[in-house]
Amino acid sequence: MATLSGKVVIAQGGGPTAVINQSLVGAVLESRKFPQITKVYGALHGVRGIVEEDFLDLTQETTSNLEKVATTPGAALLSTRDKPDFAYCKEIFNVLRAHDVRYFFYMGGNDSSDTVRIVNEQAEKANYEFRAIHIPKTVDNDLVHNDHTPGFGSAARFVSQAFMGANLDNRALPGVYIGIIMGRHAGFLTAASALARKYHDDGPHLIYLPEHAFNIDEFLSDVKKVYDKLGRCMIAVSEGITDSKGIPIISKLMEGNAETDAHGNVQLSGTGALGDALSKKIKEKLGIKRVRSDTFGYLQRSFLGCVSDVDAQEAREVGEKAAQFAIWYNIDGSIVIKRKANYSVDYEIVKLDEIAGKTRYMPEDYYDFIKKDVTDKFYLYCRPLLGAGFPQPHRIRAPRVDKILHKGMV
Amino acid sequence: MATLSGKVVIAQGGGPTAVINQSLVGAVLESRKFPQITKVYGALHGVRGIVEEDFLDLTQETTSNLEKVATTPGAALLSTRDKPDFAYCKEIFNVLRAHDVRYFFYMGGNDSSDTVRIVNEQAEKANYEFRAIHIPKTVDNDLVHNDHTPGFGSAARFVSQAFMGANLDNRALPGVYIGIIMGRHAGFLTAASALARKYHDDGPHLIYLPEHAFNIDEFLSDVKKVYDKLGRCMIAVSEGITDSKGIPIISKLMEGNAETDAHGNVQLSGTGALGDALSKKIKEKLGIKRVRSDTFGYLQRSFLGCVSDVDAQEAREVGEKAAQFAIWYNIDGSIVIKRKANYSVDYEIVKLDEIAGKTRYMPEDYYDFIKKDVTDKFYLYCRPLLGAGFPQPHRIRAPRVDKILHKGMV
Repeated sequence: MATLSGKVVIAQGGGPTAVINQSLVGAVLESRKFPQITKVYGALHGVRGIVEEDFLDLTQETTSNLEKVATTPGAALLSTRDKPDFAYCKEIFNVLRAHDVRYFFYMGGNDSSDTVRIVNEQAEKANYEFRAIHIPKTVDNDLVHNDHTPGFGSAARFVSQAFMGANLDNRALPGVYIGIIMGRHAGFLTAASALARKYHDDGPHLIYLPEHAFNIDEFLSDVKKVYDKLGRCMIAVSEGITDSKGIPIISKLMEGNAETDAHGNVQLSGTGALGDALSKKIKEKLGIKRVRSDTFGYLQRSFLGCVSDVDAQEAREVGEKAAQFAIWYNIDGSIVIKRKANYSVDYEIVKLDEIAGKTRYMPEDYYDFIKKDVTDKFYLYCRPLLGAGFPQPHRIRAPRVDKILHKGMV
Repeated sequence: MATLSGKVVIAQGGGPTAVINQSLVGAVLESRKFPQITKVYGALHGVRGIVEEDFLDLTQETTSNLEKVATTPGAALLSTRDKPDFAYCKEIFNVLRAHDVRYFFYMGGNDSSDTVRIVNEQAEKANYEFRAIHIPKTVDNDLVHNDHTPGFGSAARFVSQAFMGANLDNRALPGVYIGIIMGRHAGFLTAASALARKYHDDGPHLIYLPEHAFNIDEFLSDVKKVYDKLGRCMIAVSEGITDSKGIPIISKLMEGNAETDAHGNVQLSGTGALGDALSKKIKEKLGIKRVRSDTFGYLQRSFLGCVSDVDAQEAREVGEKAAQFAIWYNIDGSIVIKRKANYSVDYEIVKLDEIAGKTRYMPEDYYDFIKKDVTDKFYLYCRPLLGAGFPQPHRIRAPRVDKILHKGMV
């Protein structure tokens, strides 16, 4: 029990979320309560800040200001896309040891949990007493062992509110609307576009996820069916949709003009290319004139002013739990969220190698591949995560007036 | 005074906004209070619904439900892009007369005010007693005689919150970010991207409006300067930017591949083309790797859950004022918003031909063309329109820790 004395280092990695600073502040404030914690440092720009020794002394920050930072989207300690290899992790460990750091809390997705694992192994090898905890964070909701991940609920809320707004707009001025939503491998966030639907003809009418092979001819036939019936069609598409061989649709439609990053991944966010390419196909093949696409881009993960209270509170608590598990119980691992009731959660800790490098996909029974729609089961799963005060659209229900000049016409 | 008895017809035209249903409900509820109003009809899909006699009897709608509709974005009566010519207006008048309609309230931009004017002329010619009022509505804020227009404040609020979120994201993972914002002729909405800035290096760092000729070389040089200084650059661009000859930049960059509508206008919304083309230029010419663009698209005018209370209240009151002016005072015209104090407004009515076909641009002293930034004057103008509870970002202010392994390095 609880005797390991020294410093805490906290860092944030990967794409920011609307609530990642809740986890940061939770871990900082909780750590500061323990007398054996000599200092709480924040590393700037994630692991890069550690190897460069760019630390802020968070012990010298007021609780009031930290509470305000907690409500701000984006990574307050700044972030990084660095994916440390073995040598990089060794450097991280050397710096941490030099500063007498005994606790390392790293917020991120499954890459980050692997970084934590390797750093931890260095400590073991060096016989240096050290606790390392991975704090989950990702709008993609794709970490295994978690019911859901902090950041997802707020992003899902943004996506569903945005889609409902676009649906109301499209109802007033009909046409085909395509919303491109984040998600390279997992379709949870795109599926959340359905959550604000209320009336029977509300969109999205079609939803395409990266878990299911996308076929352009089938897509066009789906769109035509809805359009012929409703005179409009709202479509939610994951940026990461691929064909049956796993080739990204964006690469196929752009005929090799898609941009790739250092890891060979096609650039999906920060471009309207996929939406524009799908729009073009619909115009060309179906002859529909008004086809519009919006790529939700960075707005969906960092909008200032659309947060799920449930997500914010849970993000806070996973940060607090990281400090509790490490400092009270002297154990390493990754904090996971478990659903205990509908709706209530608790937090557990699993071994780091159980999270690292693994991707969680949408369960099959959350999606109806024939209807291209989410199931009730997904709705029941996702709705509590969006939090309180979720806005609702309302329609006029007044009766029609009889025609005078066009008597008898409908 | 106030003796003209008959029906009211209300309709909505053009692009929906977040608060256009406030105006609708204001006009409906106020009209229903007058004993000489026999019925209040809503025409579906704007003027098209009038010529097709598609009316709903809004007298048979509960106040409770109307109040809920008022808080819903999008045009509850549905909208149209039809721009009636003389013959079309004649048809409108014939239908209105057939239904004993004596009051016509039409919500829209400056095209709509022209429709109202022509219909009104028909009534005069036919010696038919008739009152017609144009109710202002546009996120572009480009109606003359108005301090601002209903719909603008909420869209401006969305744009500034979205830009601040993107700014926080970009601060955490630096690069160049381009946000493409609505505005074919007037730059107000794009300028509003600056309103949530708080810290000295918050973006947008550069703002480009349709009122000022856009030069791609100057743009690249502006971006380079900011990027060299800050290591990142946030850019807000109006979709409607043109070169010095008035040719849309989107047409130039797409080399004739841009889509045009029936009126010969280039399609600006519902495509990521402009943002992607500007990103490409920056990557090619400046060699910056991480360049991202988001096109705010339909999200900015119809997001469910981002409304300025000031905008909502004013939108409501212009609707009420339409009924008041027409029914009490028996006059025609367009309702305008005048600023009477900072901040307080009152409503006046101007002749229809004073609004129709005219575009209001950003006043010159709201924008600094050298700095590519808004002025304090714009800030003072715009801030009250965003309403109460405007969210603020907060940063950590903790001191740096001395380096141990890299002693002396910054």
